Amino acid sequence: MDWEDQLARYVAEIEAGLQAFIESLEFSDSAELRSMLRYHMGWEDDLGGGKRLRPALTLLCAGACGGDYQSAMPAALGVEFLHNFTLIHDDIEDRSTTRHGRPTVWTRWGLAQAVNAGDGLFSIAQLALLGLVDSCGETVAIRAAREMNRTCLHLTRGQHLDIAFESEDEVALEAYLAMIEGKTAALIAYCTSTGGLAAGADDATVARLGAFGKALGLAFQIQDDFLGIWGDPAVTGKSAASDLLARKKTLPVLYGLKNCAEFRRLWEDDDPDPELVMAMARTLADCGAAAYVREQAGAYMRQAREALAELFPHPNQDARTLIALTEALLNREM
Amino acid sequence: MDWEDQLARYVAEIEAGLQAFIESLEFSDSAELRSMLRYHMGWEDDLGGGKRLRPALTLLCAGACGGDYQSAMPAALGVEFLHNFTLIHDDIEDRSTTRHGRPTVWTRWGLAQAVNAGDGLFSIAQLALLGLVDSCGETVAIRAAREMNRTCLHLTRGQHLDIAFESEDEVALEAYLAMIEGKTAALIAYCTSTGGLAAGADDATVARLGAFGKALGLAFQIQDDFLGIWGDPAVTGKSAASDLLARKKTLPVLYGLKNCAEFRRLWEDDDPDPELVMAMARTLADCGAAAYVREQAGAYMRQAREALAELFPHPNQDARTLIALTEALLNREM
Repeated sequence: MDWEDQLARYVAEIEAGLQAFIESLEFSDSAELRSMLRYHMGWEDDLGGGKRLRPALTLLCAGACGGDYQSAMPAALGVEFLHNFTLIHDDIEDRSTTRHGRPTVWTRWGLAQAVNAGDGLFSIAQLALLGLVDSCGETVAIRAAREMNRTCLHLTRGQHLDIAFESEDEVALEAYLAMIEGKTAALIAYCTSTGGLAAGADDATVARLGAFGKALGLAFQIQDDFLGIWGDPAVTGKSAASDLLARKKTLPVLYGLKNCAEFRRLWEDDDPDPELVMAMARTLADCGAAAYVREQAGAYMRQAREALAELFPHPNQDARTLIALTEALLNREM
Repeated sequence: MDWEDQLARYVAEIEAGLQAFIESLEFSDSAELRSMLRYHMGWEDDLGGGKRLRPALTLLCAGACGGDYQSAMPAALGVEFLHNFTLIHDDIEDRSTTRHGRPTVWTRWGLAQAVNAGDGLFSIAQLALLGLVDSCGETVAIRAAREMNRTCLHLTRGQHLDIAFESEDEVALEAYLAMIEGKTAALIAYCTSTGGLAAGADDATVARLGAFGKALGLAFQIQDDFLGIWGDPAVTGKSAASDLLARKKTLPVLYGLKNCAEFRRLWEDDDPDPELVMAMARTLADCGAAAYVREQAGAYMRQAREALAELFPHPNQDARTLIALTEALLNREM
């Protein structure tokens, strides 16, 4: 089977599982709360709710370790609900008004109902995950639940830093990397390692799967930072240098603020027009920020690939799909 | 031992356990997040963070069932962290600016950081609870974790209704009771039933403990509604008829809106002065709202007492303390 077909099949099973899980829950008089969750998950219109790549990674890692991917399904549902709970709250915290082309939950139902709906989805994520007890037994379910909540705490630590950085003049590069490790990479690492755990892999394999996921998450996020400034608008679907326009303190910006006086001067202009923003992007590249960011992303890409090669020297079908998906995620034009 | 002494000893152990649990967690670069949680829990000043009655109920129920109260400690810590996570988010949702005599978390650190800190505390609650695996084994830990998340979902359903009611002209009495069942009683029921579960009680006992907790929670909340209008300011520490001043749609108000045209007319005055509010309180009482609310609270009080009498016909020390605490909670002047 073509890897893209296998991925599409897994994603379809995940989508059906997510819907069935929400339908199985009792909402009685608070049917509107269920509607809010269905809306956020993308089931109330045709716009879609996301690519479901995190839970797909979980299923693929389970299968790649020789396990039955279906035994990992409760974990896959759990991580996708968890991811979506964080999105509902992130949109509040970032004051984002649209996601997937539709108004965010807080924009549509107000702040109070949205905070509360996110909390509900967090509980649902835990309930879905605990379904592992039926497919993998109590020991695995407990370990996965503990690790999920350690991961959540790591996520909130990363998010705490991200919010704090908004109002800080200077952010150290190491602090930034710690932030994206918590905010992005920790959850990917959880997705990959839990797939192995559900498949009954040994501790060393589970840890290596986690290291793979962490490296993949960091590489992907740093690439995103690159593309947010130098990405081709025709490919990214965003305006040129969109992160500079939005004044996001991403890795290239932090590098420039530290190492390039000319960039610092341009950055201090509070209301940059598109022309100035293009000049900023060029200045940043000239002072070595693009090369630095490429190098950082490259190091994590190597780590991710090395981990995969070590984990799966004789890849089965799931491992081949996992490797192909990883390459597709990493081979964005930089 | 005097029941109040035993309760104080349990509360002191809970307080120490809560602090030790937070200290055991890794916060590394996000030390401020830990400070936020410590502040909310009441450990950064002398104002205190709450009476810790919910976790005390858990320990007492475990001991009353003949178990070692210490084996239930992870559950006790879990329910108190859970309760506090809901308080951080409730304060945001209700726009409350003070709690326990100090600014609420969102007032002090802003909305974004407060939503995020609440999420962190939710994860911590789950981690604390899962410590049951060491004291009570995997089966109990899994069951308690599933039930905790079902309870959380019930809480968010109740909170959803509460927020929705703010903007509704008419709220049916049954819908109001469903709301407080979710918002207040479900967590108390979880506290009491999980104590029994941790003590190894049989399913029927665990269910009866839950029924006791639910009845206690409903009786207490309905009493609160009574006291919010007719309570003695010298005893409640609030202004007379404070709930009417705040225009809260509590049970007596909903009864009055349904059954008393004169009250409805007074209620429609958008900006009532203290004198009008006293007239409203009298009108409400005259049309039978006070008697109705007393009767409702009385029915749940009877249920709570009957459940206790059935559960503990030969009460041990913990059961005697549980009974005495229940009486102290229920015997507020109505």
